[in-house]
Amino acid sequence: MNDNTAALFAGNRTTLGDYRAKHFGWTVELGVGTITLHRPERKNPLTFESYAELRDLFRQLAYATDVKSIVLHGAGSNFCSGGDVHDIIAPLVDLPMPELLMFTRMTGDLVKAMRHCPQPIVAAVDGICAGAGAILAMASDMRLGTARSKLAFLFTRVGLAGCDMGACAILPRIIGQGRAAELLFTGRSASGDEGFAWGFYNRLCEPDDVRREAQSLASDLASGPTFAHGMTKKMLHQEWSMSIDDAIESEAQAQAICMATNDFGRAYRAFAAKTRPVFEGD
Amino acid sequence: MNDNTAALFAGNRTTLGDYRAKHFGWTVELGVGTITLHRPERKNPLTFESYAELRDLFRQLAYATDVKSIVLHGAGSNFCSGGDVHDIIAPLVDLPMPELLMFTRMTGDLVKAMRHCPQPIVAAVDGICAGAGAILAMASDMRLGTARSKLAFLFTRVGLAGCDMGACAILPRIIGQGRAAELLFTGRSASGDEGFAWGFYNRLCEPDDVRREAQSLASDLASGPTFAHGMTKKMLHQEWSMSIDDAIESEAQAQAICMATNDFGRAYRAFAAKTRPVFEGD
Amino acid sequence: MNDNTAALFAGNRTTLGDYRAKHFGWTVELGVGTITLHRPERKNPLTFESYAELRDLFRQLAYATDVKSIVLHGAGSNFCSGGDVHDIIAPLVDLPMPELLMFTRMTGDLVKAMRHCPQPIVAAVDGICAGAGAILAMASDMRLGTARSKLAFLFTRVGLAGCDMGACAILPRIIGQGRAAELLFTGRSASGDEGFAWGFYNRLCEPDDVRREAQSLASDLASGPTFAHGMTKKMLHQEWSMSIDDAIESEAQAQAICMATNDFGRAYRAFAAKTRPVFEGD
Repeated sequence: MNDNTAALFAGNRTTLGDYRAKHFGWTVELGVGTITLHRPERKNPLTFESYAELRDLFRQLAYATDVKSIVLHGAGSNFCSGGDVHDIIAPLVDLPMPELLMFTRMTGDLVKAMRHCPQPIVAAVDGICAGAGAILAMASDMRLGTARSKLAFLFTRVGLAGCDMGACAILPRIIGQGRAAELLFTGRSASGDEGFAWGFYNRLCEPDDVRREAQSLASDLASGPTFAHGMTKKMLHQEWSMSIDDAIESEAQAQAICMATNDFGRAYRAFAAKTRPVFEGD
Repeated sequence: MNDNTAALFAGNRTTLGDYRAKHFGWTVELGVGTITLHRPERKNPLTFESYAELRDLFRQLAYATDVKSIVLHGAGSNFCSGGDVHDIIAPLVDLPMPELLMFTRMTGDLVKAMRHCPQPIVAAVDGICAGAGAILAMASDMRLGTARSKLAFLFTRVGLAGCDMGACAILPRIIGQGRAAELLFTGRSASGDEGFAWGFYNRLCEPDDVRREAQSLASDLASGPTFAHGMTKKMLHQEWSMSIDDAIESEAQAQAICMATNDFGRAYRAFAAKTRPVFEGD
Repeated sequence: MNDNTAALFAGNRTTLGDYRAKHFGWTVELGVGTITLHRPERKNPLTFESYAELRDLFRQLAYATDVKSIVLHGAGSNFCSGGDVHDIIAPLVDLPMPELLMFTRMTGDLVKAMRHCPQPIVAAVDGICAGAGAILAMASDMRLGTARSKLAFLFTRVGLAGCDMGACAILPRIIGQGRAAELLFTGRSASGDEGFAWGFYNRLCEPDDVRREAQSLASDLASGPTFAHGMTKKMLHQEWSMSIDDAIESEAQAQAICMATNDFGRAYRAFAAKTRPVFEGD
């Protein structure tokens, strides 16, 4: 690496294994970063501070060399109850418009950062998954649920619209336009069985197993061709509102880039040698 | 209200409770507007006149202050058999191109008006739901069905294409691209069970109950934060072909607007007082 | 037909009934073109040559007057194992970037040609349907499967990204964003039951019946209003990333065109005479 590339990398590489999160749990093990939403006695609500720190962490993840996949879960037997009524809703009621917009943009920026980081995010959803908590699950790449999980986009219950943090765009593409409309207009809870049948959850697990299974899935992803995974995630994002023809050309470029990586050669040589490939993410 | 705001409102406020529909039934009760497609002896077909009057009513609904949600259903035991063969198809066969386009634009304008009015539309679908009738159900926000309902986009059976009134855009987002392709290419009927499994129907009801349940759902919506509901509907429409990032910014703006409404404060104060909020839609 | 229209048609009409395919089977019977991927002893892999010939055939199909629908299936008890490891992956590992992009563009061009030809494509999927084989099934209009079929987008297993030939755009619209993400990130197999529940398959058939049922469906389509079918297919493509309002206007134009065809009049006269319409595709 010469001086120029070192300078390039200076602003584009970081490690997050030692990061000490203030408003949620954060650990990194074998390439899997785990976010634990906490304050289980209140079902892990979000606060102004945890929103902002989550946004900043996901933005940093774009540059992290030691985190290859992410697990998002809640402490205790719930995922997340959403924005705290006392800590968030109470002050919002009296804010002037510019500060309201500052808040809704901050929460939207969290979803943007989740979609822009290259690591696939696996949400492990048990118990209550409501409001902004439902959004965090929705904004993840994959979701494991439990039969007893309760998913509710309950913005309407607090007098707001269902269009929060991208829900009117993203939820319909996951579960279909009609089901999304019902959840967003009514705020009703969807059961684990419904969420699985609709494709919100990729799998239902026993409550005792859901975090372990999410860790296992994230661990498999972390040991895969992680540069290519980042490209898969990027294209799922970038092609959202492209024509089919443009999407196909974009994928021709993206996959050609991946064919120039070392992991592609590693996979071929392992296949030829009848061994299992060891991917390194480059 | 000063003279200027009165002038503004003059063109933007109306009431429709006393509107006397000529080509279908129309009633307004407690904020719920109910449209009853009739002529049950012919399974409630559409005519040039009913298309045009439905389009005009839905356009007026954008300004109605007394209608907060809508139920759409058919008289008797069928929803709607679509464009009448004698009243519509027969004359179309001989029309010159400019008049053909005038017709297809009129039917398309009905769907546009249904998507642009702020009220959520609940379709109660029993029996035959075919052709343009299937489109009206599809263009609603939510759909309750019955096991015996028969959904058929049967344009192909009369020598036409499946691309009618937005079907090639909207149906795939409700039930998935592959299922929509089959229904649009073949014109085959989908059963109530299929429609529910695919997410076309939000729920299956007993035939005796489906209208009552649709009224109940519409009534719940009408007593909710209706300004916010209108914003949910608008964003489900507006974000259809936006990038995720643009959709998130749009929702940040839309939700900030909703946070500046009185209903948001009402909900918070009710929560703090441990009572049920009474929303007023402002 | 005067000289000018003859000249117009010269480049826009061809017949493919006598075409002798080199790298797969090709037959035309009663308007149904059947593509049989072969080399069953290796589960019908694709090669550079078969990719290119498939692309060229689908491009020619846009001008074919004797082919009205297409069946795509594999010889023996598998659909297609994707790009051959020896014939395709081995040489790709060492190619320079311009040639890599030449390859990914060629494979993408095959999907574009499948989406641009007017004939609806029915895939009959049994056994292994993997990698580029899974893409060919995905890029078809309808899919019949079997319980024992195994669908796998296994690009990640060879160190590549899931974004191949349009998969990140098309697969989510067929089966939902969350399920597509799992298949594309993990490369895992989906069973026939999963594929049916998710809407990837329109129907599951017995292995002995799947090709016959696909032929029967394609035959029904070939005897339908085929000009209109071509318009349905075009609009499913064209409206992919349009706003709802623009899609509705596009369909008003497209359907007005179909109302000016002879098949529309044929259907009406058959209805009036209580006979079955005989469509001629003009």
